[in-house]
Amino acid sequence: MIPLLTPLGIIAAGGEMPVQLARDVMAAGRGVFIVAIREFADAPLYAGLPHKLVRLGAGGAVIAAFKAAGVRDLVILGRAKRPSLLALLPDAWMAGALAKLGRSILAGGDDTLLRGVKRLLEEEGFVVRGAHEVRAGLLAAPGLLAGPAPDAAQRADIDRGVAVLRAMGPVDVGQACVVQQGLVLAVEAIEGTDAMIARAGALRREGPGGVLVKLPKPGQDLRLDMPTIGPATVGAVAAAGLAGIAIAAGATLLAERDTTLTDASARGLFILSLESDP
Amino acid sequence: MIPLLTPLGIIAAGGEMPVQLARDVMAAGRGVFIVAIREFADAPLYAGLPHKLVRLGAGGAVIAAFKAAGVRDLVILGRAKRPSLLALLPDAWMAGALAKLGRSILAGGDDTLLRGVKRLLEEEGFVVRGAHEVRAGLLAAPGLLAGPAPDAAQRADIDRGVAVLRAMGPVDVGQACVVQQGLVLAVEAIEGTDAMIARAGALRREGPGGVLVKLPKPGQDLRLDMPTIGPATVGAVAAAGLAGIAIAAGATLLAERDTTLTDASARGLFILSLESDP
Repeated sequence: MIPLLTPLGIIAAGGEMPVQLARDVMAAGRGVFIVAIREFADAPLYAGLPHKLVRLGAGGAVIAAFKAAGVRDLVILGRAKRPSLLALLPDAWMAGALAKLGRSILAGGDDTLLRGVKRLLEEEGFVVRGAHEVRAGLLAAPGLLAGPAPDAAQRADIDRGVAVLRAMGPVDVGQACVVQQGLVLAVEAIEGTDAMIARAGALRREGPGGVLVKLPKPGQDLRLDMPTIGPATVGAVAAAGLAGIAIAAGATLLAERDTTLTDASARGLFILSLESDP
Repeated sequence: MIPLLTPLGIIAAGGEMPVQLARDVMAAGRGVFIVAIREFADAPLYAGLPHKLVRLGAGGAVIAAFKAAGVRDLVILGRAKRPSLLALLPDAWMAGALAKLGRSILAGGDDTLLRGVKRLLEEEGFVVRGAHEVRAGLLAAPGLLAGPAPDAAQRADIDRGVAVLRAMGPVDVGQACVVQQGLVLAVEAIEGTDAMIARAGALRREGPGGVLVKLPKPGQDLRLDMPTIGPATVGAVAAAGLAGIAIAAGATLLAERDTTLTDASARGLFILSLESDP
């Protein structure tokens, strides 16, 4: 058991999710200590919160900062772009860690990398949790969360998107795709969901519809890289002229839940949270 | 048997492949008749060749033109973007054809659509051939066709790309992806290979490498939509800073073969033509 008096550690990449989690945890009476990754995190967001900015690759500094803060359990959260090995500039701890993980870690997808990082943190004595284990309210419940119910054509597009993502799951590429009128307009790889949505908007056919489907990969460790949607996703989907968003209930984080759902409804976009597989 | 004195029909979408095929066939002593699809084909290319420009959706006009020209067998060739149903403006023949094929044709991928078109043409008495059945020299032979042999890291990236495309094959999305240092930079959907390559170039990590892998989908009818590379592909790969191209031997058309291979070698890019699956 982790003593509740120890602060929750947060390794923060980009976006507002890490800050949101920190504020939620503090509001519930527990302390936090954030290590924000300089290359990804929006540093001004962390003003006034207990944190340290650390450059990517300085794994030893991350460990030291958490140990000094008395952290025992931690969450990894936020948007990140996989860097090249050359950009990583590993510190001594990180160089040893990479050597231990072996070259294979760099030839796999994000899941492979994150599982390696988790193992290293656990070897240092930390417990790695999912954000949803700390704050269950961040998870999407099943059902129609916002907007009008998708029509039959949109349902068919959702089904096609689910099939595409399931097929791609084993090769650990992306979490999202956009489908309109049965056509897969775009599939996410390393560019990130928002860039993929913008591309799909430019590739849309005349006529109605178009859905973003964003799901965890089969076997993906949800503690490490849970699919997330938020106000930025809703804005991108609206700008692309799509009709709505399908996500996986219980396996998707809703950033700024109220804003996200209100924005979607106000723009006439559905957010459908799919029950897990039959 | 098709009498050799009948002209070969060519339904021409975009790019130079249809013109190249027409000139090759004529050089070998057989006539051709081209129906160029106005929305896709580069009309000036067809000056001086027996042809008719027909708008997309005018399926009846296509049939009539070929019958008037005495065509018995035909090839469908060139780049096309799937239109929306609204843009199709089907003529009477096409409206009947779409009704016959049913709505499912529009909810599948390109393979589904092309198979439907092939069936309709066959019902009209035409034989639909692959370009490679007419001109075997268009097909890529196995082996290293251009440039330096890929190194071990590039070989690993090719393997990863092959695995990604195989996983995606059953859902009929795209034919190509770009991999660098084990990372899948981009996966093709409806944007086309050249646009996907350009995106991958913008997403490249520091450091060497990056390969385009372009393969037929498992079960894809190669008579209808054979993967194709040509000088434009080589130019896009060079502009994106990638190291080379992997294709499937015996299942890839080389447009302007000599120019393609010479350009690639001159730019130091490999073109590796993979033997079929073990």
